[in-house]
Amino acid sequence: MSERKFATGTWVFGMVGDRFLLSGYRKGLDVLERIASIAEIEGISGVELLYPADFADGVDRVDEAIEGTGLDCAAVGVDLAGDPRWKFGSLSSKDARIRNEAIELIKNGMDVASSLGTKRVNIWPGQDGYDYAFEVDYSNSWEWFVEGISSAASYRSDVLLCVEYKPREPRIRSLIDTSARALLLCNEVGLGNVGVTVDIGHAIQAGENIAEVIHMLSRARKLFHIHLNDNRGGWDDDMILGSVRLVEFLEMVDALDRVGYDGWLSVDVYPYREDPQKVVAESVSFFAFLDRLLERIGKEAIDQARKGDDPVSIFSTIRKALSV
Amino acid sequence: MSERKFATGTWVFGMVGDRFLLSGYRKGLDVLERIASIAEIEGISGVELLYPADFADGVDRVDEAIEGTGLDCAAVGVDLAGDPRWKFGSLSSKDARIRNEAIELIKNGMDVASSLGTKRVNIWPGQDGYDYAFEVDYSNSWEWFVEGISSAASYRSDVLLCVEYKPREPRIRSLIDTSARALLLCNEVGLGNVGVTVDIGHAIQAGENIAEVIHMLSRARKLFHIHLNDNRGGWDDDMILGSVRLVEFLEMVDALDRVGYDGWLSVDVYPYREDPQKVVAESVSFFAFLDRLLERIGKEAIDQARKGDDPVSIFSTIRKALSV
Amino acid sequence: MSERKFATGTWVFGMVGDRFLLSGYRKGLDVLERIASIAEIEGISGVELLYPADFADGVDRVDEAIEGTGLDCAAVGVDLAGDPRWKFGSLSSKDARIRNEAIELIKNGMDVASSLGTKRVNIWPGQDGYDYAFEVDYSNSWEWFVEGISSAASYRSDVLLCVEYKPREPRIRSLIDTSARALLLCNEVGLGNVGVTVDIGHAIQAGENIAEVIHMLSRARKLFHIHLNDNRGGWDDDMILGSVRLVEFLEMVDALDRVGYDGWLSVDVYPYREDPQKVVAESVSFFAFLDRLLERIGKEAIDQARKGDDPVSIFSTIRKALSV
Amino acid sequence: MSERKFATGTWVFGMVGDRFLLSGYRKGLDVLERIASIAEIEGISGVELLYPADFADGVDRVDEAIEGTGLDCAAVGVDLAGDPRWKFGSLSSKDARIRNEAIELIKNGMDVASSLGTKRVNIWPGQDGYDYAFEVDYSNSWEWFVEGISSAASYRSDVLLCVEYKPREPRIRSLIDTSARALLLCNEVGLGNVGVTVDIGHAIQAGENIAEVIHMLSRARKLFHIHLNDNRGGWDDDMILGSVRLVEFLEMVDALDRVGYDGWLSVDVYPYREDPQKVVAESVSFFAFLDRLLERIGKEAIDQARKGDDPVSIFSTIRKALSV
Repeated sequence: MSERKFATGTWVFGMVGDRFLLSGYRKGLDVLERIASIAEIEGISGVELLYPADFADGVDRVDEAIEGTGLDCAAVGVDLAGDPRWKFGSLSSKDARIRNEAIELIKNGMDVASSLGTKRVNIWPGQDGYDYAFEVDYSNSWEWFVEGISSAASYRSDVLLCVEYKPREPRIRSLIDTSARALLLCNEVGLGNVGVTVDIGHAIQAGENIAEVIHMLSRARKLFHIHLNDNRGGWDDDMILGSVRLVEFLEMVDALDRVGYDGWLSVDVYPYREDPQKVVAESVSFFAFLDRLLERIGKEAIDQARKGDDPVSIFSTIRKALSV
Repeated sequence: MSERKFATGTWVFGMVGDRFLLSGYRKGLDVLERIASIAEIEGISGVELLYPADFADGVDRVDEAIEGTGLDCAAVGVDLAGDPRWKFGSLSSKDARIRNEAIELIKNGMDVASSLGTKRVNIWPGQDGYDYAFEVDYSNSWEWFVEGISSAASYRSDVLLCVEYKPREPRIRSLIDTSARALLLCNEVGLGNVGVTVDIGHAIQAGENIAEVIHMLSRARKLFHIHLNDNRGGWDDDMILGSVRLVEFLEMVDALDRVGYDGWLSVDVYPYREDPQKVVAESVSFFAFLDRLLERIGKEAIDQARKGDDPVSIFSTIRKALSV
Repeated sequence: MSERKFATGTWVFGMVGDRFLLSGYRKGLDVLERIASIAEIEGISGVELLYPADFADGVDRVDEAIEGTGLDCAAVGVDLAGDPRWKFGSLSSKDARIRNEAIELIKNGMDVASSLGTKRVNIWPGQDGYDYAFEVDYSNSWEWFVEGISSAASYRSDVLLCVEYKPREPRIRSLIDTSARALLLCNEVGLGNVGVTVDIGHAIQAGENIAEVIHMLSRARKLFHIHLNDNRGGWDDDMILGSVRLVEFLEMVDALDRVGYDGWLSVDVYPYREDPQKVVAESVSFFAFLDRLLERIGKEAIDQARKGDDPVSIFSTIRKALSV
Repeated sequence: MSERKFATGTWVFGMVGDRFLLSGYRKGLDVLERIASIAEIEGISGVELLYPADFADGVDRVDEAIEGTGLDCAAVGVDLAGDPRWKFGSLSSKDARIRNEAIELIKNGMDVASSLGTKRVNIWPGQDGYDYAFEVDYSNSWEWFVEGISSAASYRSDVLLCVEYKPREPRIRSLIDTSARALLLCNEVGLGNVGVTVDIGHAIQAGENIAEVIHMLSRARKLFHIHLNDNRGGWDDDMILGSVRLVEFLEMVDALDRVGYDGWLSVDVYPYREDPQKVVAESVSFFAFLDRLLERIGKEAIDQARKGDDPVSIFSTIRKALSV
């Protein structure tokens, strides 16, 4: 197995609200406080930032703060959801001016990312999609989105655009909804620096199997970034990793090893009511537990069981390895 | 069929945000502006208010504003979700002090409702439930909730407590999650002024059949209030009534007629990106269309088809009545 | 914790087909072979039978076969799904003759159960419900079902009727769909020998939390019987216990201990492609693992964490107890 | 709009059973009786057959029967689900012998289709997928499937292979689960005669929007065949078209017109308890109703509303066009 590199996002340390409590469940921290909080979490060596929100006081201040803590910048996310101007879409908006603004924002984010020493820009197009029937022309939406990503990605090939899919929320239906649609996008764009972020909670929400997604994207050399969390199914609850599932996460870790993933594992949780540091730390500890469990089982045992059509024996092996 | 009475909620005219855009998709109106906006919508004769938020400047100002428009107060909702103090529950909180605060708030809301000329207080316990396994003692939660409702309901029997169930959101699992659980609550409380609000989007989210719910609650004399909206399934999207479904809403209207429901039909939508007045007006117009469609079909035709086990013929009748 | 008593059903050893392969995935065994197969599974001490299918050659032959193996009869299920005459419902059929036939079948099943030494008759009303809108009169269906259960239960009070709820399949919507609806049924019937079977896969399919269901039913003294299996969510896949979930099953075992459940734990799986004996044995072994894990964690640790609103610490404790 | 061509499948007239009633809800017809029944349905001009089941007595007898009725053969489906030998997959089986048998069966089916005068062979790989974690090597499965389709498609380029995706059932997770995955398959195979069958119930089950799928596949020239039915969401209930939905089907018809679809519309329903002829006839009549409704609304009105971001106005237009 590769050396794991864990990160978490600054937004985890915000005031976290929901539509019924827009003022938030807690007092949010400013970006410097967030970075300081993240640096205190055992096992975390990277921070994922949000552009432009985290850079309101300039890139330098953030850069210095990160350097001061010894953290790496894992990725910079470009926020295409949190401003009302994107409410009918960003790169797929019907309004050419809005589309151009989104492209420019991504390009700026790419420069910021590069200056912070990371190659990864995360693109989660949360507002691109639709709510009602007859609301958009689906071919136009798709083509505009393809053009926008192509245009931004062509700006500088040394920065990777990591497109994060999600089936729904905040739009009732998202344009880039599944891993397969994200891969179709990458293939149509056809640029080496465009790939996919797998948020494993989004994958579960979409009814996907995470290990299968990892193999599919990796075959296409498009597995660029990973967000970690868990949920109770059907929605992006952004819970502690492992608080609901075990076996399919174990299979995910096996898949990550087999494809040789050596990128960041970025904890993306939403601790409305819990201590954010503890929620992140538990997620990292659970991943480490999965690593140990997988090592105890051994790849050979998995290979052996998988060769036959014998899922019972591999489950038996897992159960025994849990060793209580 | 009874004369329909349509209302809508003041919150529909707020700044409507979500967890990614806490500052809202639009500038919200103050409560007097909201009431004025609601009064302009054709077909709407009632307003549903939220306590305490709508009464920050006193009950009298709101009362005068309503009177000035000729609207009726359809119901007063007591807000047990939009304050961080309820984050681990209100009536079912582990903290007795919080539980008492919730009871007091409901009692005050009952007085406010009465002074505004309505008998209905809506109780949506959005924060009562849990997120993680092992978080609450389920028996305690339930018993505290029963006690709290009993205590509040006993305060004055001339006001009806309408408990609104919902399977999830904002908590990942809600305590009062389905119509059946809500009815169990009513039965255990055993007071005539405790009943149920059916938000039809919540019913759909819970996998329920609305017409069946209406018959079940009505048999028990517990159908106290109704919220109208629609969704794409699996989540409370709060869309325009009829924008997704038709046949099951037609069955709902048939059920309302058969049980003789003569209460309010309160449009509860969340127009993040649309004009709130239009979204409410369309919902009312769609309901009126359902009424006309049902009248054209005729109860006898439905009875006839239902007597046999022949769902094909009733569908055929509906299709023909659509008459295009 | 109580001494666990594990059983499994004879249907697990049938030819198991689906709608695309009605002739089955394997050659089924006759009932005597099924009993013999079940007796060979380590940890299994009971067998759940299906009436009338398993008794085509008489009750005595089955009784002798069970005695010969040393198994106990855990329950007798009355089959209200597997005969076309029930296709529009059994106890809730619009046809009084069908309803009476269903009542008679249950009474006969009660006698058979008693003669086999068990008090439990399982009633899974799989065909009672509906597919299309406007197909049934929901109040009639409910009332006929209540009457049918009352009539059958009154036949002899020394046999327990265990009503097994399920949200859907084979009907698109089931009449007794959730634990709350099943409890409403019990309350309306009002007889001490009518209670509920919790099939935990059905509970998951219904979006329920198993531990919560156990506490709710136990408070009402209606937790009569339990079926064990697992699924990937949204459907009754009838998989090996634990092959998908862990934490919520651990919470289930904690709940069973706290309410003092001492009944049968009957493995109800559908091994279309796997060895039935192994699938049952693994399920039992996984339950034993949960028991050991819970013992290692200790009830005090759970109580302590649950007292505060601290789900993170209990998850941390579980993770550490897994000990790899 | 194109002239519509409606067909239905012979399996609709089988004994239709489910896993609890393997002997079926009715007496099935033999293939000649099925064809005769289909020919009696108003509006149906094509029949979709299943190979090899429908050809047990030779291709000629079937050919003559079709000719005698004046029906066209709309498509021949190759059955890769209904034989236990496919239980661990057909084209993606780990067993090379099985994979080859599947390829040969498809080739034979292609010949049969051609001799019956249709270019369409439907491939629904219902057994290709998995149930448990760690059961298959996802990369292998995918590559074997790609190879199998390539091999079969290369056999004769004058026959179209129409791959029908479905998220689950009978396997708990299907290999070709969504329209996007099906399109990735087509792109990787890279042959002009490999495309996609959209079963609209499968699309709904997968959480897709049908109109969007039609536009996406049509852009790629891969919309080869369509199956019509409806469901209550989350499962492939195979109900009468329109018995649950209206607006999204209207949008589907609009999409079919805009992309110029002129292929078959094949009614694929499962009338467990209803008269198969009536269920098919109602589905066709409902589609005709959608055509008339769309014509009354007019493409210009839709275009106009879609240009702005105004889903409310288009919904209003639809409602008014319903004209009751």
